Amino acid sequence: MTRLFNDPTAFADEALDGFVAAHRRWVRPVTGGVVRAGATPAGQVAVVIGGGSGHYPAFSGLVGRGLAHGAAVGNVFASPSAQQIRSVARAAHGGAGVLLMYGNYAGDVLHFGQAAERLTGEGVEARTFAVTDDISSAGPEETAKRRGIAGDLPVFKAAAAAAERGLPLDDVLAVAERANARTRSFGIAFSGCTLPGADHPLFTVAQARMAVGLGIHGEPGIGEEPLPTADEAARLLVTSLLAELPDDVEGPDRQRAAVILNGLGSVKYEELFVVYRTVAELLTDAGVEIVDPEVGELVTSFDMAGISLTLTWLDDDLEALWRAPADTPAFRKGALGTPEPVRAEPVIAEETDDLAAPEGSDASRRAAAVVLDVLDALAATVDAHVGELGRIDAVAGDGDHGIGMQRGSTAARRAAVDTHALGAGAGTVLVRAADAWADKAGGTSGALWGSMLRAVGTTLGDEDAPTAARVADGVRQASAAVRRLGGAEVGDKTMVDVLVPFADTLAAATAEGVPLAAAWDRAAGAAEAAAAATADLLPRKGRARPHAEKSLGTPDAGAHSLSLITRAVHGVLNDHIGEAI
Amino acid sequence: MTRLFNDPTAFADEALDGFVAAHRRWVRPVTGGVVRAGATPAGQVAVVIGGGSGHYPAFSGLVGRGLAHGAAVGNVFASPSAQQIRSVARAAHGGAGVLLMYGNYAGDVLHFGQAAERLTGEGVEARTFAVTDDISSAGPEETAKRRGIAGDLPVFKAAAAAAERGLPLDDVLAVAERANARTRSFGIAFSGCTLPGADHPLFTVAQARMAVGLGIHGEPGIGEEPLPTADEAARLLVTSLLAELPDDVEGPDRQRAAVILNGLGSVKYEELFVVYRTVAELLTDAGVEIVDPEVGELVTSFDMAGISLTLTWLDDDLEALWRAPADTPAFRKGALGTPEPVRAEPVIAEETDDLAAPEGSDASRRAAAVVLDVLDALAATVDAHVGELGRIDAVAGDGDHGIGMQRGSTAARRAAVDTHALGAGAGTVLVRAADAWADKAGGTSGALWGSMLRAVGTTLGDEDAPTAARVADGVRQASAAVRRLGGAEVGDKTMVDVLVPFADTLAAATAEGVPLAAAWDRAAGAAEAAAAATADLLPRKGRARPHAEKSLGTPDAGAHSLSLITRAVHGVLNDHIGEAI
Repeated sequence: MTRLFNDPTAFADEALDGFVAAHRRWVRPVTGGVVRAGATPAGQVAVVIGGGSGHYPAFSGLVGRGLAHGAAVGNVFASPSAQQIRSVARAAHGGAGVLLMYGNYAGDVLHFGQAAERLTGEGVEARTFAVTDDISSAGPEETAKRRGIAGDLPVFKAAAAAAERGLPLDDVLAVAERANARTRSFGIAFSGCTLPGADHPLFTVAQARMAVGLGIHGEPGIGEEPLPTADEAARLLVTSLLAELPDDVEGPDRQRAAVILNGLGSVKYEELFVVYRTVAELLTDAGVEIVDPEVGELVTSFDMAGISLTLTWLDDDLEALWRAPADTPAFRKGALGTPEPVRAEPVIAEETDDLAAPEGSDASRRAAAVVLDVLDALAATVDAHVGELGRIDAVAGDGDHGIGMQRGSTAARRAAVDTHALGAGAGTVLVRAADAWADKAGGTSGALWGSMLRAVGTTLGDEDAPTAARVADGVRQASAAVRRLGGAEVGDKTMVDVLVPFADTLAAATAEGVPLAAAWDRAAGAAEAAAAATADLLPRKGRARPHAEKSLGTPDAGAHSLSLITRAVHGVLNDHIGEAI
Repeated sequence: MTRLFNDPTAFADEALDGFVAAHRRWVRPVTGGVVRAGATPAGQVAVVIGGGSGHYPAFSGLVGRGLAHGAAVGNVFASPSAQQIRSVARAAHGGAGVLLMYGNYAGDVLHFGQAAERLTGEGVEARTFAVTDDISSAGPEETAKRRGIAGDLPVFKAAAAAAERGLPLDDVLAVAERANARTRSFGIAFSGCTLPGADHPLFTVAQARMAVGLGIHGEPGIGEEPLPTADEAARLLVTSLLAELPDDVEGPDRQRAAVILNGLGSVKYEELFVVYRTVAELLTDAGVEIVDPEVGELVTSFDMAGISLTLTWLDDDLEALWRAPADTPAFRKGALGTPEPVRAEPVIAEETDDLAAPEGSDASRRAAAVVLDVLDALAATVDAHVGELGRIDAVAGDGDHGIGMQRGSTAARRAAVDTHALGAGAGTVLVRAADAWADKAGGTSGALWGSMLRAVGTTLGDEDAPTAARVADGVRQASAAVRRLGGAEVGDKTMVDVLVPFADTLAAATAEGVPLAAAWDRAAGAAEAAAAATADLLPRKGRARPHAEKSLGTPDAGAHSLSLITRAVHGVLNDHIGEAI
């Protein structure tokens, strides 16, 4: 378990501070993450990687010459926010565009995508690429749904080495695509990790059993089997990967692969070597030439006991990129020339406009006071259920829903208080709260809740006292924003299953003239029923949750938290009947 | 716990095979361990390190340019044998002598010392150096008794970098001495490791507690305290080390230190960084300039949850040696020029003379058959008590006594059978068994039991039927050999406490004319009483077991196993009354 921390909510930030303190020879801190100590050479594409904390050396430990130009570092197991990614990308940019790279998780896809849009809008050419190497997370006909695990490393490295050659952005992206198409991973695990400050591991595996095909955030595997010997483990990994060769791998006499045997955290080096001994034998027997193997901890999950095997099938060009030198805190290879001089500029502080806010009308400022109460109740509800939400989420997802919601709702409340104190109206208070939520929470829920609060805030504005109809309209806008951003529809077993009937019921009731608190009560009832019903659903599509079938009998975490929150907000509205709203 | 293995007794060998398979760019295998892939440059002192397996990257992972020229790799938590060390040293030797370096543990001191003697006798100039950085293992007035933990790395590196400069052997040794005198470590732990195939961890720490000053083999700490925050842990480590500055450290304005924050196995990187953040702050506040810090897993103990902090106080020369480049499987730093070409010679197979043996007399060959029965009974006794011996040893020692005795007695029996089949007499059978024990067991007990069997065998010879008096004389020679080699006396709470009364009683009884089996019975009774009495003893000196006071109430493991074995041997002698012996 994770034992050494101070304030668990500060864990990721403090770990990043310590990482930087130990590695100033390679990196320097910027808002949102780190960039190389030396400047990106002018005209070189910048490769900016990122993801949640808890996977060291992914992602900050892979920043340095020959590998990434920067890393956006999210909270524990949560995507960095679009704002963080944008900040790191701007600091890493060398004038030739930025390739944003990350593992294929919903939160990362959302935030990196948003960051790329913003960067492009600001004149920084940006592309995104999600690594999809984990063959256990979706079938060969759905490779785009696969998660990214230890295959992140060879794919990042191929793209970064291509950038070092001076290739233009689209060519670097093409290299990433080719490397990813030829990279496959498969993992097994024996115990889960415990997050800083948590009482329980994210998942458990029975004594003397092995989970097959497990993800790096506690996502469930595709099966459970008896604990293998080291040789049996090696055979399972190798045969699983050899069963799915990429289409364009050359004939048997030219099969070459970069090989990574990765430890997730507490399977230690000697065990990895015992397994690798047989991995190497089996691959050699199968006619595969092993190129520059890596055996060690390269993408981890705190102290999870597990291993994964990654093969990148090489052609001449990919082999040269894999063999190219690199010099980062955690991955060093070959010899590089003299480094670029370490830059001494101060840490980038992103421009902020928090110090002023447009003044709201008296009516809207009174409504903003109610918004503060709503955000208080929201955060208190999340606090009270944080453990439950994490456990539900771990059934089919990555277990971070509770802590992500907690970080977001806490930040939103704080931003709302500050903004209200500046004299802002309800709309601006909600929009600032929305931005703080998305920025501090990261992850999928951060992006979606940020978009919801922003939609409501924009609809309310800073002038008029919000009417019931206006509030209902804001909620409908929020519902539309979530569907647009997340791409889910009713029946996919997500928060959309709750949000749509909630918004529709609220709109219908207010249209009938039902007062806001009573209309909200009716809508919250619909939300609760819809959330409960997600427990009985098999999702129609499985984006980013390929094992959602495991969750039959458990409600979706995002649906459940939304229904809890709608009920809590009803309590606030009841208290304020006849007041500002 | 350690889960991935095949045959637990083959674990260390298989781990070494896999390590080599993954790292042929840096190392090549030789009998007993590994040497650099490229030859030691002619005229360069070879630095050969070593110790037990289970501490990766110590020791094999530290072989490469800028660091060690070779590593002798022992079994799990057991010293390599003198034969292994000699083999590696001969392969690494570049004509300018060899410095043998290891942590200060009794078994390593014995075996490396014996290897140095043999090497010198063969014309390879050899020196030995034991690292003593762990301040919790003995007081400042007894630094020579301290254990070696993560301070191994900076001391090895200083000596190796000095060797790379072309310094002569005694100057390289002087650098090792200076680096060691200025290196201090202190550790804490939260849980013990479980050895491959074992049911229980070597030690446990209560939930939410911390063991202070713990060793890397489960040696007990000097206290237990509540689980600290990361900041509290950092403060404890820093203040403990700053409380004991070496005498010759320069004034406060010139204090510089190489800093290593080491993870023992399952305290993960993010936790290390959170701790390091505060370590760096505290050292900086204390006026210490931090030079090239290392934060990671550098000397481990399987999946033990623990950390240690090491400071090497630098002068200009030590700073240059610490900053010098290195390129090994697990420690890479700076840029080196083109490597020496990888050598293609086959793995060194040490010459063996096992294929022939001097023929014994008929009488001695009959006696040799009894010796086989004795060694069978010995090995069976060890097998039956292996878990108990390990647990007893873990109270004040490193917990390897059971598995070490098992490896040694199994190998001795096998060698005896082979040698007897060649027609050898009792003396040669015992001497060959002795060498096999020492070679396969490693560790302290391996060296001592090897010397005992050898002493008895040499006394019996291959001609005469052993008389009771001759056997008693052999046991007295064995007693003398153990005292000479181990340096312990009666009252030190070691096997000497048993061996001396056993030998004396046997000699007195046979001198009175008591037949051998009856005399042995009397001596075994004395041995049992003496072994039990070690439970009540505080040792008078604490070589290599600084925390022996913890063991009050527990017999010494070596004393206990010896008494069990003397009783088992009595059974064999009883069965053979009137026969060859």
